[in-house]
Amino acid sequence: MSTSRPGRPRRVERRRPGDTPEEEILDAAAELFITRGFAGTSTRLIATAVGIQQSTIYHYFSTKEEILDNLLTRTVVAPARLAESLMRDPERAAVRLYAMVWFDCRQLLAAQWNLGALFNLPESTRTKFPRFDERREYLRDCYRALSLATRSESSTSDSAQWSATEVDIAAALPFHFVEAAIQIRSDSPGRVERIGADDLATGIADAALRALGHSGDLTPVRKAARQVIRQIED
Amino acid sequence: MSTSRPGRPRRVERRRPGDTPEEEILDAAAELFITRGFAGTSTRLIATAVGIQQSTIYHYFSTKEEILDNLLTRTVVAPARLAESLMRDPERAAVRLYAMVWFDCRQLLAAQWNLGALFNLPESTRTKFPRFDERREYLRDCYRALSLATRSESSTSDSAQWSATEVDIAAALPFHFVEAAIQIRSDSPGRVERIGADDLATGIADAALRALGHSGDLTPVRKAARQVIRQIED
Repeated sequence: MSTSRPGRPRRVERRRPGDTPEEEILDAAAELFITRGFAGTSTRLIATAVGIQQSTIYHYFSTKEEILDNLLTRTVVAPARLAESLMRDPERAAVRLYAMVWFDCRQLLAAQWNLGALFNLPESTRTKFPRFDERREYLRDCYRALSLATRSESSTSDSAQWSATEVDIAAALPFHFVEAAIQIRSDSPGRVERIGADDLATGIADAALRALGHSGDLTPVRKAARQVIRQIED
Repeated sequence: MSTSRPGRPRRVERRRPGDTPEEEILDAAAELFITRGFAGTSTRLIATAVGIQQSTIYHYFSTKEEILDNLLTRTVVAPARLAESLMRDPERAAVRLYAMVWFDCRQLLAAQWNLGALFNLPESTRTKFPRFDERREYLRDCYRALSLATRSESSTSDSAQWSATEVDIAAALPFHFVEAAIQIRSDSPGRVERIGADDLATGIADAALRALGHSGDLTPVRKAARQVIRQIED
């Protein structure tokens, strides 16, 4: 049985999830890049996995790098959009940072492929990916701003005095703690399934706040953060 | 000028740091794997970078995978050795976990190449590396045990009640927070140089303890942790 549509002949039936050939190509490329690496994946291999001609890929993407840029960008688009709203939100910083970390972890854990692992491909750090790099940098700046503001809030009740260097380093960490979600998912996929993306995201968001000196019960912050996300998503 | 020694002819002068050809091969391979990926690096390329014949590599390593196993193993040998001593140490858990995180971050930040980034090569998660996998798993178990014990200690002064799931997730995080050191180093090498490996390691160790509900001044823990490391190293 063929699922090909008129005007776009396919060699074989549809093999990958996705409503368009572009989506199918991205899905196949994600799996192959994650399991075989970027250098180890040819466009011919991607085409075979989709069940299309190699030349069809170049109809949608001019290079293999563009496919990776596209996939990387997908991991930051939704969090960057949320961050933009959060930067203007009147809620206190701890709630906004919590919402940011929770949402970001959740989307990384819930995506079809562990796309976050593509950050770590040698090619991702070596090559410039204009769309991805710009959004990731923006996201990192938002994390930093919200982390600094959160620290500033918690410093009023924290008995410890932090030096400027301590604050500087602590403000850089929540952005990277989110990447623990990627690492746990690639290390122990069974663990993520057992715990669930929601609870794991909660654990990482809790840790981000505590690392900035926010102590005590986090229940009110958790509730307020979910509320903020719901309002922004509506 | 040739630096070759009698009995081991070299095509060109010594190009890489290392006292033995084995060390030079590992140094060149580390750089190439990190910058070009594993699939993108041939043993011929490694040989060229060292200035030796390709066949010489097979005198020391039977496969390219064995070279990567060797490099990966180097990132966990010293921390695993420290962990073994710490598991038997009578100090309280917070100090031992702190020592563990601090020491591990420091060695990852101070190594010639950002070898930790090799964890994240697709090949590292796909392939079995017997030596590395065994030590890393041991290290992860030690992190977990020390994290659980640290949480247990801090729960006596923490006003918040943690559920079993919260404790379970929090205990998994310090092991992954250490990987933030790798990420920061590959994202912003200049930042690591400016802050210094010691202070960055301190910031991450602070965060690991706070994430487990340890609040207040960490100065005594920091001092005790350095003392423990010094005693073990002596």
